[in-house]
Amino acid sequence: MESIVIKDVLLNERTTSILIENNLISGIGDHVPMPDNAFVIEGKGKAALPSFANMHTHAAMTLLKGMGSDLPLHSWLNDCIWPAEKHLDCEAVYWGVKLACLEMIKSGTTLFNDMYFLLPWAAKAVAEMGIRGILGINVFGDGDELTNEAFLQLRDEVEGAGELLKLSIAPHSIYTVSEKGLVHCAEMSHRYGTLYQIHMSETEKEVQDCLAAHNCRPYELLERTGVLELTESRLVGAHSLYLDAEEIDLMARHHVTATHNPCSNLKLGSGYRFLYSKLREAGVNITLGTDGSASSNNLDMIEAARLMSYLQKGVRQDPTVLPTNELLQVTTENGFKAAGINAGRIEVGKVADLILVDLNNLAFIPMHDTLSGLFYAAHGDAVDTVICNGRIVMHNRHVEGEEEIRTQAFRQARKLRP
Amino acid sequence: MESIVIKDVLLNERTTSILIENNLISGIGDHVPMPDNAFVIEGKGKAALPSFANMHTHAAMTLLKGMGSDLPLHSWLNDCIWPAEKHLDCEAVYWGVKLACLEMIKSGTTLFNDMYFLLPWAAKAVAEMGIRGILGINVFGDGDELTNEAFLQLRDEVEGAGELLKLSIAPHSIYTVSEKGLVHCAEMSHRYGTLYQIHMSETEKEVQDCLAAHNCRPYELLERTGVLELTESRLVGAHSLYLDAEEIDLMARHHVTATHNPCSNLKLGSGYRFLYSKLREAGVNITLGTDGSASSNNLDMIEAARLMSYLQKGVRQDPTVLPTNELLQVTTENGFKAAGINAGRIEVGKVADLILVDLNNLAFIPMHDTLSGLFYAAHGDAVDTVICNGRIVMHNRHVEGEEEIRTQAFRQARKLRP
Repeated sequence: MESIVIKDVLLNERTTSILIENNLISGIGDHVPMPDNAFVIEGKGKAALPSFANMHTHAAMTLLKGMGSDLPLHSWLNDCIWPAEKHLDCEAVYWGVKLACLEMIKSGTTLFNDMYFLLPWAAKAVAEMGIRGILGINVFGDGDELTNEAFLQLRDEVEGAGELLKLSIAPHSIYTVSEKGLVHCAEMSHRYGTLYQIHMSETEKEVQDCLAAHNCRPYELLERTGVLELTESRLVGAHSLYLDAEEIDLMARHHVTATHNPCSNLKLGSGYRFLYSKLREAGVNITLGTDGSASSNNLDMIEAARLMSYLQKGVRQDPTVLPTNELLQVTTENGFKAAGINAGRIEVGKVADLILVDLNNLAFIPMHDTLSGLFYAAHGDAVDTVICNGRIVMHNRHVEGEEEIRTQAFRQARKLRP
Repeated sequence: MESIVIKDVLLNERTTSILIENNLISGIGDHVPMPDNAFVIEGKGKAALPSFANMHTHAAMTLLKGMGSDLPLHSWLNDCIWPAEKHLDCEAVYWGVKLACLEMIKSGTTLFNDMYFLLPWAAKAVAEMGIRGILGINVFGDGDELTNEAFLQLRDEVEGAGELLKLSIAPHSIYTVSEKGLVHCAEMSHRYGTLYQIHMSETEKEVQDCLAAHNCRPYELLERTGVLELTESRLVGAHSLYLDAEEIDLMARHHVTATHNPCSNLKLGSGYRFLYSKLREAGVNITLGTDGSASSNNLDMIEAARLMSYLQKGVRQDPTVLPTNELLQVTTENGFKAAGINAGRIEVGKVADLILVDLNNLAFIPMHDTLSGLFYAAHGDAVDTVICNGRIVMHNRHVEGEEEIRTQAFRQARKLRP
């Protein structure tokens, strides 16, 4: 792999240069070595930041974006999303995931944590786009079809597609998976060392139903069944919106990662009180996601980060909550940490997943503060260059193959219309 | 003035053409006349929509964007904003407003309702940029300096700068302007037929203080003092966040315009419960604003609209509230109505303030619904072309003089730093 030198770039509000060799950041400073074959990126007028980790999405659903907006949840699912999903074949998933990766790259994301179907076709798409995907096997009911053989075959297909792909196990939720299924998934996750991604406590109804059926709250159910112990440090609870103090304590003790999805939670009417400060004080690893584009409706992590911070400030009537340095940690470092990847900070020895932001974007003019410009004024289109695992996947906003993806996305979407 | 033909553009999900003559939309249809000197815009791959009306901002404050993010309100004002504002001279205001207009044009806004200082320099900037500005004379205390002579001279300067400029009267708020001042402003507004813009009920504290000092709520104070009667149909209450049923009734009876500023309200920790449905049911004219970039921190009406809708859906746990057709009305028609301009819809006979949105933006791929793509997925950069009063102010994202504005904005901002 070629080496890369990013010359004269703004890093932590100081101008410096960054050397990337193989997949690692190997030098930072005014006079980094310049290897003979280095690809040089002019960093002037740009700021370097870690790339984003989108820790909860359903990438293929980008094809369904904009279907049935503003409908009640029941008819949105019954009349729009589920009928369309029946037509989502391998080819549609492949191009839907390509389109999602394109959008993620163009807004600075290099890692996403997914949950959907037809994973081998998704994996092929992600591998071709050059970013990291953790693809979760969606499990419902008792999960009987998730045998060791099925898992191993799928793992071969998904992880065989490229070195940046990982298979995970993703029981859909406590209300669509039986206790037996939840435990079976946890045992499989334990056996094979995968992440365990699950929708948790997304709505008040889910919590009330859990209390009625099991006489305990959702995270307590996961503890009581042994799931939290089996998935120690590897459980990603998407949403985690309705929690009590005991659940937060359980999450901290079992090193659960909570993934907030503010855009989806608001748009679907799920709620708005994510317990950021309580989770942070307890030591829970807090990450951010966009959810799928059918519910949110884009994959822009800057937008999701801004909304997350604005909601905390507005709802608690305190402008000091969740400042930009914490937003950076939530959107980058904490996500890579959950995925077990040594990236998320621009430091020597870290894996080179990073972005260059164009400071000529109006969001930064006249710039007083890079992180404030990024999180409070910019949108994804301020991202100019994206590097994933030491490889350039976007430069000057050019992504290889973009035109074909657009054409194919239209073609695939026609299949899904009622 | 040349005529303009927009050929084969998507309008209300149907392909058609639009003829603009002088400043009016004079034809819509498959076979509109094609005047000899017509400037033809290729509308294929684009959707036509009315342009946005940003009904509350402080344009010049774009120069202060990003200063003191995440600070408590008191030190943000005392240590950052107020010291910087002391250095805001005529030249800084001129270039600050130019920068704001550039940003507004690039995100589809052709009308803004402003409140600030040094209005003649602001007016010159707005006139040169070719959009509509309603510039409010900021009044504090008793407003003794707002004499008839002072008003008339300022009106000559502001409205003399260009036909799209309007002067208005803007008492800052009920807590910084005396009762005498509020009434004096209302009499002046009545005498000269101007808008009366005022920050109203932005925080709970403001309401509590009003109750303690006057034994009534803010809008009741405006009624009791005769302000609502004097400003009938011309009062724009920015924020209008904390209201009770009696106040909403007063607002409806006096044809008050309420301007919601969701980004600012959240970021500054003011609150999040704008009473959209109650105001709408009462028949209050509801509009949207971004507030100034020091508090919000951009002027993107699409972002503000999305947040407005998401907040309504999320806080009320109902995804059907404030659907996209109502968002369109709030962000366009209602604002032009408040300003007394016959625009805000694309219909024959309406003033030609409109935008073309680029359907090749990823927000619309694969498109299922233009308004859903615009309000739930796109950002301001999806706007390709902007027409104000029948004149093109942006085409293919090119705005005249952009480079000089960027250079000057940096130069002016250096004056403001501590």
